[in-house]
Amino acid sequence: MEKTTKSSQRIGIVGLGLIGGSLGLDLQSLGVEVYGLVHRSTTAEIAESRKLANLVSTNPTILADCDLIILALPLQQLLKPSAELIHALPKNAVITDVGSVKGPVLKIWRELHPRFIGSHPMAGTNNAGVNAGQKNLFKQRPWVSTPDQNSDPKALKSIQTLAKNLGCNWITTDAQLHDQAVALISHLPVLISAALLQTVVNVENSSLVNLAKTIASSGFEDTTRVGSGNPYLGTAMFENNASAILQSLDFYHHSIDQLEKNIRSQEWDEILKILKTNQLLRPEFLSK
Amino acid sequence: MEKTTKSSQRIGIVGLGLIGGSLGLDLQSLGVEVYGLVHRSTTAEIAESRKLANLVSTNPTILADCDLIILALPLQQLLKPSAELIHALPKNAVITDVGSVKGPVLKIWRELHPRFIGSHPMAGTNNAGVNAGQKNLFKQRPWVSTPDQNSDPKALKSIQTLAKNLGCNWITTDAQLHDQAVALISHLPVLISAALLQTVVNVENSSLVNLAKTIASSGFEDTTRVGSGNPYLGTAMFENNASAILQSLDFYHHSIDQLEKNIRSQEWDEILKILKTNQLLRPEFLSK
Repeated sequence: MEKTTKSSQRIGIVGLGLIGGSLGLDLQSLGVEVYGLVHRSTTAEIAESRKLANLVSTNPTILADCDLIILALPLQQLLKPSAELIHALPKNAVITDVGSVKGPVLKIWRELHPRFIGSHPMAGTNNAGVNAGQKNLFKQRPWVSTPDQNSDPKALKSIQTLAKNLGCNWITTDAQLHDQAVALISHLPVLISAALLQTVVNVENSSLVNLAKTIASSGFEDTTRVGSGNPYLGTAMFENNASAILQSLDFYHHSIDQLEKNIRSQEWDEILKILKTNQLLRPEFLSK
Repeated sequence: MEKTTKSSQRIGIVGLGLIGGSLGLDLQSLGVEVYGLVHRSTTAEIAESRKLANLVSTNPTILADCDLIILALPLQQLLKPSAELIHALPKNAVITDVGSVKGPVLKIWRELHPRFIGSHPMAGTNNAGVNAGQKNLFKQRPWVSTPDQNSDPKALKSIQTLAKNLGCNWITTDAQLHDQAVALISHLPVLISAALLQTVVNVENSSLVNLAKTIASSGFEDTTRVGSGNPYLGTAMFENNASAILQSLDFYHHSIDQLEKNIRSQEWDEILKILKTNQLLRPEFLSK
């Protein structure tokens, strides 16, 4: 693969899926030299042809001269890094990740590298894999970091600069609070969306299921989307943020039980009041 | 308003909101003469300027010479029609509605008009009101009818022709089965989506809620959409399809309890299996 003129910074990206590939495209546009590490040679070929990085390799030694390395691996791989990968990370490089759960990531990576900063951009599409990366995925999206008192301030500053250069809104917060918030606004929706689709497929009346399939419209489509995504990613979320998810689920049971009680008691004014609140409040959660 | 040449058929539309207005636009494109009845003169002015019908009026006598009349009213108004409207419907005209619940509609309208056929197109957007109507809303969408042994066969045929001319896929089914299917794929999603948004707003830790608002992304946006729509429509759905919704909710509790049990018992393989099933099954429910 053709090598561009060396710029002032060289960034390594481990994994060139949706997030890693998108980072590679945007960082190259910013004039940064990007080295991409992937697991399989077939993936490397596609990544090269899509120009996701200036240099793509399956050999971890590619990371040797990188100033900053982004671990853009699926959560389950991020939490069980290979000895080869750990060995290949330069001690003086700044390391960050893109995992959506921070507690378990920090627990492992704090011990593995002195300049590790837990962080991740809040951005995505329905696509995954080496063909999913796209330009400008991160513009106006939050990039969350979860430093603690032991975090290297210069390393943190490097990640902040990276995020700002990509057009992200930089957020610094506590790892535990972060994982609770992600449970509420990301993992709980996956759980209830998955349960909704299961509800319909578990109905035993086949005429009813067939009619439901025929008339299902955009409401069903939107509400079941996140519960039907990558099953490995979903399982990894549940496994690695279980206690925060179960706590969110307790709150959720309270909300749905309230609505059920209102329906059973024919308290339509109460339901109208709740739905009016929702209509006003949802915009506060929408993409800024 | 300018009156076009009289065509072979004149269709009356009562209400020119999203569905009524969209019907008006498409029917005029098909060369049908459309007469629109609205409640307020300010609405009539907008409907006229948007050319939602050939003639728009606030006077029900406009319906006197219509061959077919579509009651495109919100469910709550459809179920409590004014004496003036009932009086204005010609006895020999074919009447249909666009209400998403068929049992309660039939219960009332079967008594009110001899040529009433319960039906509705499954189509929509997030918009409502006289500015919401748009062209080609119904193409490739299902149009469901729920005739019974007392329905006038010629009246049914007229609605079928109307639906096909609009590009809809015609479906005939039992009213009760229809309402159960709609509870599953439309009303239950509204309920669980509304409960999800309530969950987040009910959390007492304000740092957590603020962080959740900042980092909420497309997953939360999609999953809370239908639970934050028109509160009056939502309440009317719950009120008029309560027993089918409560039955769906029982099925849903079973699904979510299963997932909760799997998380508490750390049965990650079981969760992976469920999420794999979901990934395969959702496409069967998507827009055809």
